[in-house]
Amino acid sequence: MRQDHLISARQLSRADVETVLDRAAEFDAGLDSGDPTLREHHPGEVLALAFFEPSTRTKMSFDAAMKRLGGRVVDMGGVDSSSVKKGESLADTVRVLEGYADGLVLRHPREGAATMAAEFVDVPVVNAGDGAGQHPSQTLLDLYTIRENAGLDDLTIGIIGDLKYGRTVHSLATALTEFDARMHFVSPESLRLPRSVRFDLHEAGAQLREHTDLDPVLSGLDVLYVTRIQRERFPDEDEYRKVAGQFRVDVDTLDAAADDLTVMHPLPRVDEIAPEVDETENATYFEQAQNGVPVRMALLDLLLTDE
Amino acid sequence: MRQDHLISARQLSRADVETVLDRAAEFDAGLDSGDPTLREHHPGEVLALAFFEPSTRTKMSFDAAMKRLGGRVVDMGGVDSSSVKKGESLADTVRVLEGYADGLVLRHPREGAATMAAEFVDVPVVNAGDGAGQHPSQTLLDLYTIRENAGLDDLTIGIIGDLKYGRTVHSLATALTEFDARMHFVSPESLRLPRSVRFDLHEAGAQLREHTDLDPVLSGLDVLYVTRIQRERFPDEDEYRKVAGQFRVDVDTLDAAADDLTVMHPLPRVDEIAPEVDETENATYFEQAQNGVPVRMALLDLLLTDE
Amino acid sequence: MRQDHLISARQLSRADVETVLDRAAEFDAGLDSGDPTLREHHPGEVLALAFFEPSTRTKMSFDAAMKRLGGRVVDMGGVDSSSVKKGESLADTVRVLEGYADGLVLRHPREGAATMAAEFVDVPVVNAGDGAGQHPSQTLLDLYTIRENAGLDDLTIGIIGDLKYGRTVHSLATALTEFDARMHFVSPESLRLPRSVRFDLHEAGAQLREHTDLDPVLSGLDVLYVTRIQRERFPDEDEYRKVAGQFRVDVDTLDAAADDLTVMHPLPRVDEIAPEVDETENATYFEQAQNGVPVRMALLDLLLTDE
Repeated sequence: MRQDHLISARQLSRADVETVLDRAAEFDAGLDSGDPTLREHHPGEVLALAFFEPSTRTKMSFDAAMKRLGGRVVDMGGVDSSSVKKGESLADTVRVLEGYADGLVLRHPREGAATMAAEFVDVPVVNAGDGAGQHPSQTLLDLYTIRENAGLDDLTIGIIGDLKYGRTVHSLATALTEFDARMHFVSPESLRLPRSVRFDLHEAGAQLREHTDLDPVLSGLDVLYVTRIQRERFPDEDEYRKVAGQFRVDVDTLDAAADDLTVMHPLPRVDEIAPEVDETENATYFEQAQNGVPVRMALLDLLLTDE
Repeated sequence: MRQDHLISARQLSRADVETVLDRAAEFDAGLDSGDPTLREHHPGEVLALAFFEPSTRTKMSFDAAMKRLGGRVVDMGGVDSSSVKKGESLADTVRVLEGYADGLVLRHPREGAATMAAEFVDVPVVNAGDGAGQHPSQTLLDLYTIRENAGLDDLTIGIIGDLKYGRTVHSLATALTEFDARMHFVSPESLRLPRSVRFDLHEAGAQLREHTDLDPVLSGLDVLYVTRIQRERFPDEDEYRKVAGQFRVDVDTLDAAADDLTVMHPLPRVDEIAPEVDETENATYFEQAQNGVPVRMALLDLLLTDE
Repeated sequence: MRQDHLISARQLSRADVETVLDRAAEFDAGLDSGDPTLREHHPGEVLALAFFEPSTRTKMSFDAAMKRLGGRVVDMGGVDSSSVKKGESLADTVRVLEGYADGLVLRHPREGAATMAAEFVDVPVVNAGDGAGQHPSQTLLDLYTIRENAGLDDLTIGIIGDLKYGRTVHSLATALTEFDARMHFVSPESLRLPRSVRFDLHEAGAQLREHTDLDPVLSGLDVLYVTRIQRERFPDEDEYRKVAGQFRVDVDTLDAAADDLTVMHPLPRVDEIAPEVDETENATYFEQAQNGVPVRMALLDLLLTDE
């Protein structure tokens, strides 16, 4: 991977993605077998975590990844206790942090924050989410999970739930156009893909169709990617319940699907997937969360290693 | 120890307890001598801390213990910044966390939370307190401290203070029945042992007596275990002060006791033990806190090591 | 260094300071070259961070320093989640913490807190700021930065901004009297050095002059040390703006100064130094922040190593 920073999944060619996923697969096998050489990859190196927005899960996953590679982690902590409160600019904050570490993982509420940070520092910057912008390590772990379970070639995927506000979904869909996946987007009318995202996907040559009901396409899917429908998007509770119930995945859904359907979800879930699904072979969402560690190990390893 | 998880001190036989305490004694000696092989026990292994309630002390102690064994720690952080706020169930949270780590330490306000967590994950779970339920590592460090200072055989112990709400006390008393200790419970009438705990202790064959005054039993004690009387248990300040003053341990208390009385306290203390006691040979509460590290090292080592 | 604790820069002789700075220079070179033996200095040792006041920067810097030496860190976390809330005394808290670690870094809002802590514990205590008191590691990293860029011999330094409330400035000025530096203090009349500090500096034989304008002394300076003027020190916004504008350093300032002027700032800055200065060779404040790591490595190494 000839990248100094990882800001957007868009910057990654298909070959780049495959480089990351191949390395992730090696690390994944090493984690399973308890390979003691994993921690010889980056001993003594220090990664700084700068999360200007809470994100326990992404943060713990990067933290665990760096530690599995033998590295150390320093954490800026919450924004409340930082110099940000005293009016410091992001450019200053990241220039101070680079003095403490060999790499920087940044989450920030402002779109473009990671791009800006990367211009100011010499150490590798990983974007762990910038507002409505990108969250490329999530996309890579999604791709990894798809590859391990259904394969990325000749893929038919259904993406269901809140397609309007879901940053994760937009990023994943963009990346999947590189793999010529057939994509079915299923959502209530009010939560359709934004026009701009549809436009971009068409421009990139995506094969996509939109639906308001899962039934017609379910049996042909290799992967069903479920996202959370947020209560706060709806004017009243009744409206929310009606929609949420309609887009809930349960064992009846699985009965109508291919036996080897892979069910994914970026988590946390609330009611989108019935707990009874957890016991099935189809449930892949906890494995997906777990894949965050080897994928982020691969990312960090590629960025921290001098060529 | 043939346990996959440590949920309750009750699950430990006398032999189990002795296994943990013996291992703790080895680690304790290693810490004292700066033995560099300690950190070869669990290098590269990762422990996840999931504290749904604040508990700096227990958390730091597990953190230090894992690090002394050469391991790494990832911390979920406060509940505010976690997926819990988005409505995620505990079962989901722990299944995600197990993907990041080789073991899980859980504190949760709901009784039974650790038992439930252990049903959902494959990595070892240590209960670090579940509401009014159990906190077994505290009991083990108490037992270790007693064994090191007074011995667990032929023990006479006085337990004084708030015996009604003190989870620590109930757990310790239960464990001590395994060692045929003679127990004197000393408290104001309003803070007596709950009837249910008394019943359980009697069922277990405990030799116990209750008192509202320490004087009659003091001289016969090997150990005096003091607990904090909380202001908020009393209707008014005057009532609190009267009781707190009456159950305060000072040098006059020590004068009336055996020379080698071991004074313990789970800390933090407020006024229950006068600072002048700190300077005496009897004061064992800081050593007791410190024992949290070797005892938790022993626990983690036994749980993380495959047989 | 024959010190068990580091409480105040005042306790350090010129020889002590030079011992720390020489060791820091070695570690600095090791960090630059990626020397793998750095982490063999304190493997398996544990440092406890007890910050009773927020200070992300100082904390991360100590954290990174200990980890670069191969050590581990346990963090008390915020005061909210600690036993302090239950009314525990500082003396009790630090005696518990010493049971978890080989050294203790303490920040506390009360002047004298570190001195008191050092009386109660056997492990080395580093004062990371005690109210209006001392913050010696900041002073040492300032001295290190001056030595690396301008030299400590025959030094002429200008210190500008808020000289009344700036703990950093008082500490640095005191330390510089050991090196016979010529000091120019430049501030608005309302933010002059406090009388007591002026008195102490004169007693120590300092060569100091005070000014309300930088222009007359600028061209003769080797180092310009800029500090933040806090909005909240002024009765109204207009007054603040007038003063802040007058004491702002920009490229015009540099044009009137020696070519090799070293510009320092303890950070965070708000408007005291124009961003255009960042691009110049004179800007040394990010390097200064970065120097926190090797200087704190040196400090920790000297304190944690048994003679």
